[in-house]
Amino acid sequence: MSSLIVELGDRSYPIELGTGLLAQPQAILPFLEDRKALIVTNETVAPLYLDRLRQSLSSAMPGTLVLPDGEAHKTLDTVSRIYDALLSGQYGRDCVLIALGGGVIGDITGFAAATYQRGIGFMQVPTTLLAQVDSSVGGKTGVNHPLGKNMIGAFHQPLAVIADTDTLCTLPSRELAAGLAEVIKYGLLGDAPFFGWLESNLDALLALEPSALTEAIRRSCVNKARIVALDERESGPRALLNLGHTFGHVIETALGYGAWLHGEAVGAGLCMAVDLSCRLGWLKVADRDRAIALVQRAGLPARLPAQLRAEDFHRLMAHDKKVRSGKLRLVLLKAIGKAVVAADFDPAKLDETLRYYCRDGQG
Amino acid sequence: MSSLIVELGDRSYPIELGTGLLAQPQAILPFLEDRKALIVTNETVAPLYLDRLRQSLSSAMPGTLVLPDGEAHKTLDTVSRIYDALLSGQYGRDCVLIALGGGVIGDITGFAAATYQRGIGFMQVPTTLLAQVDSSVGGKTGVNHPLGKNMIGAFHQPLAVIADTDTLCTLPSRELAAGLAEVIKYGLLGDAPFFGWLESNLDALLALEPSALTEAIRRSCVNKARIVALDERESGPRALLNLGHTFGHVIETALGYGAWLHGEAVGAGLCMAVDLSCRLGWLKVADRDRAIALVQRAGLPARLPAQLRAEDFHRLMAHDKKVRSGKLRLVLLKAIGKAVVAADFDPAKLDETLRYYCRDGQG
Repeated sequence: MSSLIVELGDRSYPIELGTGLLAQPQAILPFLEDRKALIVTNETVAPLYLDRLRQSLSSAMPGTLVLPDGEAHKTLDTVSRIYDALLSGQYGRDCVLIALGGGVIGDITGFAAATYQRGIGFMQVPTTLLAQVDSSVGGKTGVNHPLGKNMIGAFHQPLAVIADTDTLCTLPSRELAAGLAEVIKYGLLGDAPFFGWLESNLDALLALEPSALTEAIRRSCVNKARIVALDERESGPRALLNLGHTFGHVIETALGYGAWLHGEAVGAGLCMAVDLSCRLGWLKVADRDRAIALVQRAGLPARLPAQLRAEDFHRLMAHDKKVRSGKLRLVLLKAIGKAVVAADFDPAKLDETLRYYCRDGQG
Repeated sequence: MSSLIVELGDRSYPIELGTGLLAQPQAILPFLEDRKALIVTNETVAPLYLDRLRQSLSSAMPGTLVLPDGEAHKTLDTVSRIYDALLSGQYGRDCVLIALGGGVIGDITGFAAATYQRGIGFMQVPTTLLAQVDSSVGGKTGVNHPLGKNMIGAFHQPLAVIADTDTLCTLPSRELAAGLAEVIKYGLLGDAPFFGWLESNLDALLALEPSALTEAIRRSCVNKARIVALDERESGPRALLNLGHTFGHVIETALGYGAWLHGEAVGAGLCMAVDLSCRLGWLKVADRDRAIALVQRAGLPARLPAQLRAEDFHRLMAHDKKVRSGKLRLVLLKAIGKAVVAADFDPAKLDETLRYYCRDGQG
């Protein structure tokens, strides 16, 4: 087991990373400090890991709530089901929620924890690669609104993140690829050596080799923790973590949540961001091609579904959280490993990228 | 105009208090800093004060959203209406919500601000005595759940509180009395001289004399700001502000939100808290009688509706936010001006108070 700390003053917390953690009571129980706990998970994860976790926590006798699976359920209505379970089970302000599952379960459960009785403790027990490298770390919680992804939410840091790499063995290959999109993102935005390591080790990751997976997760979490520690509430550098996400959110919203996985949309979004960076003359053609090649090797879509139009992007990007006083801000690359938040780009180049990816007018 | 500051480090903010503030652009506009704003108000307040506020803010061209009036609408569904207005109006992360109305509007709007795009700015423009002395100050936001009042919420401090005492002239007498319950509470819990001042000046307050009202509001806000500055997130002394509220919340929940005003329930709750304090031998009989007499003079109910039973209190107090590890904590008095949070009281005495107030078995 290796442990790293997200440094946030009195909100600091550890990320515990290793194999078999779910079956180790001493890896999880100490964070509960004898408080009443409710495990929140979904119908897909429950048959695989719920018993293992309950067994480890048996001395704490946690309650459980099993939600339906999928991004389509990342709504305020689902959060209400958690409130209902907490209130009908008479959970007080000192209880702890435990999110067992992927990014959706973590985001929903974290938001319930942020807002139940004005804030209670929660733990992240991520079971997908995406959640282990990204969504469980950093305290972003929330749900979707029909007009935009993650538009309702709060910053609320967990008490701890427990990432058991054994859970990745049951991960469908589409979900593995979706997680790799975020892993590749960390290399692109701020860690060129890691990007090189990924180019060399992608096959091992796709083959689920434990040592490669552990290294990819550890390095991703180190990168994320460093940026979150600099800027907990995303007033500055943390926005860099949204590389590929502004485009990705439009894809998810336009297709309807759940049609593409979040990581798949981010994969295509990364390609669009490097394409635009290249058209602006900020990124070398060779580096654009390396980035797109790695996304494709990971099994991610590098093109968009035929029904998307440039107009969809213009309309939906206007809702983006990074719009400030009417001006769209995008995360773009100056080089592999060097991202910037930019509002001063040539909008005609953005239009070129959108038309290229959306194949508008091609029938 | 007088100004006092709630000291909370980088979340500090001013309370501006005076007559005619709504009609003074320079009292409000500077806090917007040219950001896009949405005024949230209700059907009762809008015809009285919305035009005046919009006129003052005309250079900022704020949007408006008028919600139905009443505690029955303090729900997640109403918060969703604010999200809908923000998203369909393309409000970005740098916008400001302005809550124009009483405590319900302030709590709902504050919660929307706490959770829209993980937190945006908001201003409180309270138009009831209760909101001016209590709910607009301190950053508690939230909505009710069918199983408990204010069970869903967040701490989110406003940018400023603008309390125009002119708005109290249109306040129904029942609402004035409800506000006085909180004013009396500040005297009881920590300011014996203020309690004495209230005994001498209650008639002037009931007659809406501006100088008396201003003094009562100022002194209430000073008391609240002092306690909030000590303990922003209610881990310690801030719990004292709940004097009368644990009982009061049961009354509101059992009767259904809106049957009694919050302040009316608090008034009866104050009487129950002093009754129990006296039965425990902590408060002198003469001081209990002074407290109950002042609550009654303010026009507040000192008795409960006939349908309430002691069992309702036992059942609903189990959901109270101040329950810790199964033990009920109540705010009780050692003297007028000296409150304590207690879990070590004799439960038989609590039962006596409940049976006395609920008149169980009296037919």
